[in-house]
Amino acid sequence: MSATLGELAKYADVTLKGNADCIIHTVNTLKKAKSGEISFLSNRRYASLLSTTEASAVILSEQDSDNCPVSCLVSDNPYLTYAKVTNYLYPRQALSSGISDSAIIGKDCTIANDVYIESGVVIGDGVTIGSDCYIAAGSVIKDGVSLGEQVQVNANVTLCDDVTIGNNVILHPGVVIGADGFGLAQDETGWLKIPQLGSVIIHDDVEIGANTTIDRGAIEDTVIQSGVKIDNQVQVGHNVIIGKNTVIAGCTALAGSCVIGERCIIGGACAISGHIEIADNVTITGMSAVSNSIKSAGLYSSGIPVTENRIWLRNITRFKHLDETFKKILNKLD
Amino acid sequence: MSATLGELAKYADVTLKGNADCIIHTVNTLKKAKSGEISFLSNRRYASLLSTTEASAVILSEQDSDNCPVSCLVSDNPYLTYAKVTNYLYPRQALSSGISDSAIIGKDCTIANDVYIESGVVIGDGVTIGSDCYIAAGSVIKDGVSLGEQVQVNANVTLCDDVTIGNNVILHPGVVIGADGFGLAQDETGWLKIPQLGSVIIHDDVEIGANTTIDRGAIEDTVIQSGVKIDNQVQVGHNVIIGKNTVIAGCTALAGSCVIGERCIIGGACAISGHIEIADNVTITGMSAVSNSIKSAGLYSSGIPVTENRIWLRNITRFKHLDETFKKILNKLD
Amino acid sequence: MSATLGELAKYADVTLKGNADCIIHTVNTLKKAKSGEISFLSNRRYASLLSTTEASAVILSEQDSDNCPVSCLVSDNPYLTYAKVTNYLYPRQALSSGISDSAIIGKDCTIANDVYIESGVVIGDGVTIGSDCYIAAGSVIKDGVSLGEQVQVNANVTLCDDVTIGNNVILHPGVVIGADGFGLAQDETGWLKIPQLGSVIIHDDVEIGANTTIDRGAIEDTVIQSGVKIDNQVQVGHNVIIGKNTVIAGCTALAGSCVIGERCIIGGACAISGHIEIADNVTITGMSAVSNSIKSAGLYSSGIPVTENRIWLRNITRFKHLDETFKKILNKLD
Repeated sequence: MSATLGELAKYADVTLKGNADCIIHTVNTLKKAKSGEISFLSNRRYASLLSTTEASAVILSEQDSDNCPVSCLVSDNPYLTYAKVTNYLYPRQALSSGISDSAIIGKDCTIANDVYIESGVVIGDGVTIGSDCYIAAGSVIKDGVSLGEQVQVNANVTLCDDVTIGNNVILHPGVVIGADGFGLAQDETGWLKIPQLGSVIIHDDVEIGANTTIDRGAIEDTVIQSGVKIDNQVQVGHNVIIGKNTVIAGCTALAGSCVIGERCIIGGACAISGHIEIADNVTITGMSAVSNSIKSAGLYSSGIPVTENRIWLRNITRFKHLDETFKKILNKLD
Repeated sequence: MSATLGELAKYADVTLKGNADCIIHTVNTLKKAKSGEISFLSNRRYASLLSTTEASAVILSEQDSDNCPVSCLVSDNPYLTYAKVTNYLYPRQALSSGISDSAIIGKDCTIANDVYIESGVVIGDGVTIGSDCYIAAGSVIKDGVSLGEQVQVNANVTLCDDVTIGNNVILHPGVVIGADGFGLAQDETGWLKIPQLGSVIIHDDVEIGANTTIDRGAIEDTVIQSGVKIDNQVQVGHNVIIGKNTVIAGCTALAGSCVIGERCIIGGACAISGHIEIADNVTITGMSAVSNSIKSAGLYSSGIPVTENRIWLRNITRFKHLDETFKKILNKLD
Repeated sequence: MSATLGELAKYADVTLKGNADCIIHTVNTLKKAKSGEISFLSNRRYASLLSTTEASAVILSEQDSDNCPVSCLVSDNPYLTYAKVTNYLYPRQALSSGISDSAIIGKDCTIANDVYIESGVVIGDGVTIGSDCYIAAGSVIKDGVSLGEQVQVNANVTLCDDVTIGNNVILHPGVVIGADGFGLAQDETGWLKIPQLGSVIIHDDVEIGANTTIDRGAIEDTVIQSGVKIDNQVQVGHNVIIGKNTVIAGCTALAGSCVIGERCIIGGACAISGHIEIADNVTITGMSAVSNSIKSAGLYSSGIPVTENRIWLRNITRFKHLDETFKKILNKLD
């Protein structure tokens, strides 16, 4: 939908400088925006594009507003204002409701009237699906699963037995929730599988990225608390607990029974060991390895960025003997 | 099902101290267990919970049994005994058998009488499915695939042409077996795809985690030997061979043509280079990089755990110049 | 199909030494090849197998041809010649055409006559499918998607709304293209989802591995240029641009808005940070972390290979204090 700049300023609760009646149809980048479009400046590396933008309006900070050649929305947090404006211009679309003739629904299910279930969905027995849910084609929902309201299950998702999902949850394509945890005991001849008796509980307002997997608990449940946002291809082991409003970027692996605090920000491609705890408000940069508990809030990192290969080869050779070489040097210096 | 403590002791072949007639309904953690439940103590970090547990019985080591306030099963390996007891209390459930009307079965298939094939399964031509197999909804089994007995194919699994699976194999949701290996030759203009003529052979008693991918071989087959257990989101390249009873944790990547020994334990988020060999009984800790063959059994590691970001920044700057700085220092000391 | 050695030499445009009339049925390894089979020697580690091979012919370099006991095809690039020969012996098979009765096709679709759509496929409204496309069982193609000609969509693939795919593209099982990017703005109470308005454009001759995910753009599109080859379980964030003929090995993660040049070779299990640029002709070895732009062609690496655990433990302890220790040493030396 379209809106006037005045409406947008009011909705986002920010200051407008310029023409309140200007009609905005969509958002665009500073470089590509044309008349009728609003852009935003939140990353300093794009500041030079401001002077030549053809956008009708720009969302930016007080500090940048003096250099803005067009109307603007002045915000303490331009990125958040951009998010609000985009949500206003692109409200959640009302889905059709109805259950496809080719969907298969098991026995004893409780399904709200206004759900939308596409072709090729297979739902087991005793499943509960709340109001305004959407289940896309190819998804499989096994026995005893419970979905709250406004849950969006995209294509080819698998929800295993007895998984519980709260309200306003988005599951992207290929997500698997509730597969068995990796529970094995070593015996004389090999490995004995341990039945995984727990389940997975996903609270409200959670979003889970494509092909992410969240395993069911061994005895107790794996728990994703409200407001958690998980990117694509993240692996969450059995009995992990992720605290409220924590975000986890793509390809990160959380080993079994780790407990992540609230409001943490975990970068992509990290590995978190099992049975450790991470405090609230911890930020971990991408490709870090966390093998011990982190007990206080702060910014943590590991991983070594690339260098030219010939330098790297020499450095890793040194690293192999790091302790030994330091001992030698320190001995000589003493 | 329920069992007396005496039955459990007998089944698990361990010593009982206390009330053999006590009825056990389920397992639970030391902290949460109530009357009628059995718990276990195998990880020392939970030892303090023993004195206050409300479990009816606890599985533990001889050393801990003196401090146990309730009946106990004394075991050299409490974790294995817990696994056995759980399997006894939760035996594999007999599945219904039958083939859903909405499953599609190709021509010339050989399917045992007692298989259970759910709705929405698509099976190609010339497929063999042994006794007591289960194929969950959304799974696709292409032409010429062969499944042994008691194979559990969970939802949305893909088995590509001519893949061979042994007996008692579990494939978790989203697994893809037999997609083309990443075989390319560089020519004048770009990359030429090499037809992948091999297949994948999975031997008996293998378990493969959700969204794991195992590619078919270029010429010969990719082979997963018996008793191998692979966690979620593991990538197994073409022509990899994984030896008996090896376990691989989540998100590890095995590049093409690497050969992994028997009884190895490979942690999560590791990367194993192509065309290398890893000996039997090698254990590799999580997030390690293995770029050369490992010729003898033992414990191997790489990866650097997180520190506070400000310290990390200084350390990686030093690492960039590691060889250079050492040279300078060692020269001065000579 | 079979071919004479003469035909193969002509097709691959290489020199034949030996019997041009020899009939070749298939390719095989030096070790396993029998009469009627052709093998190749491109990796020096297999050179010792040449003298005892039972292959009818071998593809190899001029330098190795003197030691070849059988007929040979002499090539500057034996691996490329092997690729060409394999393609000649295993031409792309003509698929049956037809649309399964159990496939669901939406409204207003434009579908060429010679496509092959298997059972259980679900296609939305307004979808365009070009000539000679193949859509395997379990795949879901949402509204407005466009496929060029000769696109191979393997099983259980998800193509989200409005994704555009060029000609001669191969998507392996479990691929997800066009799921929402990970776009969130932090507000007072948690995280606000940003509608992802862009799409994904895949150009011609692209191959994408099993369970790989490519997110749709936030405002502009995510773009995969022609000739790009991506392995399994790669994550491509929103607004990434990958240049022509770049190849990316398995389990690598590309964060949002990074721009990868042409003809790059990126190893497996790498992590590329967001908003950075990588020049053309950059090669990055496996398990590297790239957190800054790479401005010139070359070979880049990071990551530390495994050592025995007891040595690693000492080295990482030193690494934790790397800067501090160097400062101390350098001060003493001054």
